[in-house]
Amino acid sequence: MTTLSLSGVFAPVLTPVDADLNIDTALYTEFCRWLLDTGCHGLVLFGTNSEATSFSVAERMAALDAVLEAGIPPEKIVVGNGTPAISDGVELARHALGAGVHGVMTLPPFYYPNVSEEGLFRAFAYIIERVNDPALKMYFYHIPQVSGIGLSAELLDRLATAFPGAAVGVKDSSGDPANLARFHQVAAAHPGFSVLCGTEALLLANLRGGGAGCISGMANVIPDRIRAFYESWQQPNAEARQEELNSLRKAVGGTNYNVIAAAKALTADRTGADGWVRVRPPLVELTQEQRRSLTQAAALAQPVVA
Amino acid sequence: MTTLSLSGVFAPVLTPVDADLNIDTALYTEFCRWLLDTGCHGLVLFGTNSEATSFSVAERMAALDAVLEAGIPPEKIVVGNGTPAISDGVELARHALGAGVHGVMTLPPFYYPNVSEEGLFRAFAYIIERVNDPALKMYFYHIPQVSGIGLSAELLDRLATAFPGAAVGVKDSSGDPANLARFHQVAAAHPGFSVLCGTEALLLANLRGGGAGCISGMANVIPDRIRAFYESWQQPNAEARQEELNSLRKAVGGTNYNVIAAAKALTADRTGADGWVRVRPPLVELTQEQRRSLTQAAALAQPVVA
Repeated sequence: MTTLSLSGVFAPVLTPVDADLNIDTALYTEFCRWLLDTGCHGLVLFGTNSEATSFSVAERMAALDAVLEAGIPPEKIVVGNGTPAISDGVELARHALGAGVHGVMTLPPFYYPNVSEEGLFRAFAYIIERVNDPALKMYFYHIPQVSGIGLSAELLDRLATAFPGAAVGVKDSSGDPANLARFHQVAAAHPGFSVLCGTEALLLANLRGGGAGCISGMANVIPDRIRAFYESWQQPNAEARQEELNSLRKAVGGTNYNVIAAAKALTADRTGADGWVRVRPPLVELTQEQRRSLTQAAALAQPVVA
Repeated sequence: MTTLSLSGVFAPVLTPVDADLNIDTALYTEFCRWLLDTGCHGLVLFGTNSEATSFSVAERMAALDAVLEAGIPPEKIVVGNGTPAISDGVELARHALGAGVHGVMTLPPFYYPNVSEEGLFRAFAYIIERVNDPALKMYFYHIPQVSGIGLSAELLDRLATAFPGAAVGVKDSSGDPANLARFHQVAAAHPGFSVLCGTEALLLANLRGGGAGCISGMANVIPDRIRAFYESWQQPNAEARQEELNSLRKAVGGTNYNVIAAAKALTADRTGADGWVRVRPPLVELTQEQRRSLTQAAALAQPVVA
């Protein structure tokens, strides 16, 4: 049996900021520890839910350094190195690998629309070749509804063929089961290639299709519940338990608030640290009234027995 | 009569790269000089046509330094400081102002879709307030078909009201005459506010509406022709001469090639420096065959008498 390059439940870690909108390192490292203690197999620093692209390369590197200095094991970390500039992608990947992390999660360059598959292949290849490190494990990041640039199964197949050992997985945040199934076929053709879904709502479908787990924004809020489901997905009543797991996502979605601001507000509720509500522009934090509505909606979505 | 903050014909300078895809400083400075000698009032370094977002902050700052060291006057330069991270926008603006440039051109943060006007206002305000320099002149960059994020006339009005002297203009690359007219109303309400169109095809309409000029990709190829039109727009037959000016744009558009790769290929034709054809991924350079087709189409678009 081939071992997947990465598997389990991962949080795209929310990034707390202080009143000056700089990363609050103390809250950040405390939160990373809580996520690992509460159910996450590992952490993705600087994904979409982390407001990754709202921070400079220097800020992202300093935050990783702080997390590692706080004692979080580097092998439990994947670093998002997505940027519009491939040279920045190289710098972030080199820094992350130098720190001993498991791997990187890479967006396509996301400024120009309608770029060709050839152009995307060259962008990823540039990063892999310039990093030039046998330790590199790259997870491609498909989130077309945000980045504007989708990654086809054909492109992933081409990358996995050209760069075996480096091109080792994909995060599918499209939320589209049909797309997830196409990525499962890529994984079937490239043993060890990990397909991670971007929503815990597709975790059962992903695991049944040979996928590896999820990197879900909701894992910032309910890592324990997602982990419990992950550990028991082959047991009876999986569909009903998947449906139960989806309740918080539905409750948050029902408010129509920005999901990142909402996840931060729920973290402020849980920790009592009100500073958690802050986001960097262009995002806007929830108002007090919105926060109250969200808190109520989320409370109704909790299981009666935790 | 109020003087506009910026007026004339500007090129969003193409960025030549060497075989390693690093900025070719020698070709770059030579090209900047040619643009100024051949018709441009000034240069916008690192706009969309410059592949700005494909280069790191460090690469963009080093390129500006090289241009200034080569003797290009800083007061003729506007620096594009658009990035998804507002902290990067601050760093690029500070560096540019420290070098004595005229001002900066700023994209909205362009990763997250559907951000609010309040979030965009806060993003621009953050940069203006953190730069905290009375010399700052900021031109907002409206190019929704590429960045995915449009700037409304209401937002521009709010910015010009909140930051007089700093929020001094807009580049409208939408290509939409109705939008241009809305921006003219912002300018009318804020004397000195410059509206620059992103295509020379709307130069006449822009100047007639009180706009200030253009920052057009085609100014990389035919700065002399655009400048001549700019100097004579109040003379007879302006519509016919505007139509004649549009011929190269139509010829390039008719090929359906990427306009940045096309402008670089035409620059390779003009200079004989074949390295000019290179682009950074995710863009892809024209093939030899595409280049030949483009060269033929462009030749037919030249006026019989130059």
